[in-house]
Amino acid sequence: MHVAIIGAAGMIGRKLAERIADTGKMGGASVDALTLIDVHAPNVAEHFAGTRTALAADLSNAGTIAGLIAQKPDVIVHLAAIVSSEAEADLEKGYRVNLDGTRALFEALRHAEGYTPRLIYASSLAVFGAPFPTRIPDDFQLTPQSSYGTQKAMGELLLDDYSRRGFLDGVGIRFPTICIRPGKPNKAASSFYSSILREPLNGQQAVLPVSEDVRHWFASPRAAVGFIEHGATLNSALLGARRSMTMPGVSATVADQIEALRVVAGDKAVALIRREHDPAIASIVESWPRDFDTARANQMGFRAETSFREIIEVYLEDEMDGQGPNAMRPVA
Amino acid sequence: MHVAIIGAAGMIGRKLAERIADTGKMGGASVDALTLIDVHAPNVAEHFAGTRTALAADLSNAGTIAGLIAQKPDVIVHLAAIVSSEAEADLEKGYRVNLDGTRALFEALRHAEGYTPRLIYASSLAVFGAPFPTRIPDDFQLTPQSSYGTQKAMGELLLDDYSRRGFLDGVGIRFPTICIRPGKPNKAASSFYSSILREPLNGQQAVLPVSEDVRHWFASPRAAVGFIEHGATLNSALLGARRSMTMPGVSATVADQIEALRVVAGDKAVALIRREHDPAIASIVESWPRDFDTARANQMGFRAETSFREIIEVYLEDEMDGQGPNAMRPVA
Repeated sequence: MHVAIIGAAGMIGRKLAERIADTGKMGGASVDALTLIDVHAPNVAEHFAGTRTALAADLSNAGTIAGLIAQKPDVIVHLAAIVSSEAEADLEKGYRVNLDGTRALFEALRHAEGYTPRLIYASSLAVFGAPFPTRIPDDFQLTPQSSYGTQKAMGELLLDDYSRRGFLDGVGIRFPTICIRPGKPNKAASSFYSSILREPLNGQQAVLPVSEDVRHWFASPRAAVGFIEHGATLNSALLGARRSMTMPGVSATVADQIEALRVVAGDKAVALIRREHDPAIASIVESWPRDFDTARANQMGFRAETSFREIIEVYLEDEMDGQGPNAMRPVA
Repeated sequence: MHVAIIGAAGMIGRKLAERIADTGKMGGASVDALTLIDVHAPNVAEHFAGTRTALAADLSNAGTIAGLIAQKPDVIVHLAAIVSSEAEADLEKGYRVNLDGTRALFEALRHAEGYTPRLIYASSLAVFGAPFPTRIPDDFQLTPQSSYGTQKAMGELLLDDYSRRGFLDGVGIRFPTICIRPGKPNKAASSFYSSILREPLNGQQAVLPVSEDVRHWFASPRAAVGFIEHGATLNSALLGARRSMTMPGVSATVADQIEALRVVAGDKAVALIRREHDPAIASIVESWPRDFDTARANQMGFRAETSFREIIEVYLEDEMDGQGPNAMRPVA
């Protein structure tokens, strides 16, 4: 199987490529070719045993897409996107990359005769905006309240229409908020969700800008890679006309996160969390979804962690070589 | 108030323009200027007392849009669209007109400094596709199963995002199936819904291609015009972030339609309906929505007929000069 990853330099793309290189497989099928595409040629999965191609390219470049499609990868994982905050700050760039880039890819597939690859489309919880029920069902309307969420929801609609017409074989994955993200805090409003665990696990202070009763929906980076792997070989006939699904995850309050941290790393780690209310972040986070009934994805066999403790343990295993908390080594 | 109607030569656009010309008003406000736009210059509402401009133009022509926006109409009614069957047969044309044309209009409004018109966006029941509950609630997901429905749903998302950002003040109207349409039967799968009433009311035979227990959602052309009028001056602050709504209507089976025809026009009219099963039409119609709970639109003050008898009576009044059934005059 030939797998192409567009947006392979991002956190999920990198982890997916590394995992394919490690196992030589994806969703149970052998992978003999891997094409990695990003704005800068992705410098990952260099130990992959099959044919590995790294390309620096932009989705809005028609030539790039044509070159990719000429190779007819069996699975295309489309992770490339302008992130939420940038898509909000730069409307034109967000629509150009997130909507037009996606459409250009789908259009190129439409024009490729006799070629209908599995297309994994990365969507987001940002397609949901308040008001919504505490537990959002699979058939709830998409009500984005950001340009990023709007672009992702429009991509989901295109994915359904182009799948229905047989131009591609789409599987849309609405990722939970990924936690614990490796690396450093960033300017995303969601950054603290990883930071209040990651920093204390590494013996460092972290700032909590919202109250502890705020609830949200999470899965680990490992689960996120697993969703893509599972989607790559899923029998899409089971999906019918609706190709996108909210992925399973853990609904947890900040208090739940902190309690899990206490169980894994003790009171000393918890004491490293400093409360510093930030009304701007609190107000953004307030409108985010809290909980989902993901019956459909569960039934299709997608799996995530079932407790926050598990999510923390995945971080210890995958990012700290299983060394346990407070190992005081710097995070890569 | 200056009102611009894009797609003014269509059935609803024409009726809306005529009504504004008759009353000099829209949604309670005085109208002193009317700009009518369609692919061919619309030849309607010539008795309008204010300033009337008719333009032959295409939404994909940037110059046209710029010219329209320079006049800063207070209300823009965007009815222009490639219809369902054509958008399915010609993918490129459907996306170009229904999606790109809408986006070009919204983008032009984004670039117009200090100008935020009310934008009435015509959407459709085609944004819904089976499976769905028998009675679809306001918060049910949009699951189009046609390219037309996909394009309309994408337009709804854009309408919300561009309204949220303050580039326009959108109100999206999902029209029920309009019944009784004046004129002749056409190739639309929905054509029989009007035909089985209109033809017998005019003393002519009609063909019923589906079984009598098929249920669907209807409103009259007069109600459709009323939705737009009401939307033109609605306090959009009441809508919040979700600008599009399913409009009220009458949920009726074909048997209900026929019974209403019998009450209004007698057994002789009903006898003019010839059953001739058409599996292709039956299968298309089978996937269409049957009933809606339109609590939101009701609360916002949108009104439709409440029985099929009323829908037939509107036809007699508006299309047959109130002459009653079997007047045996040709329909204009």
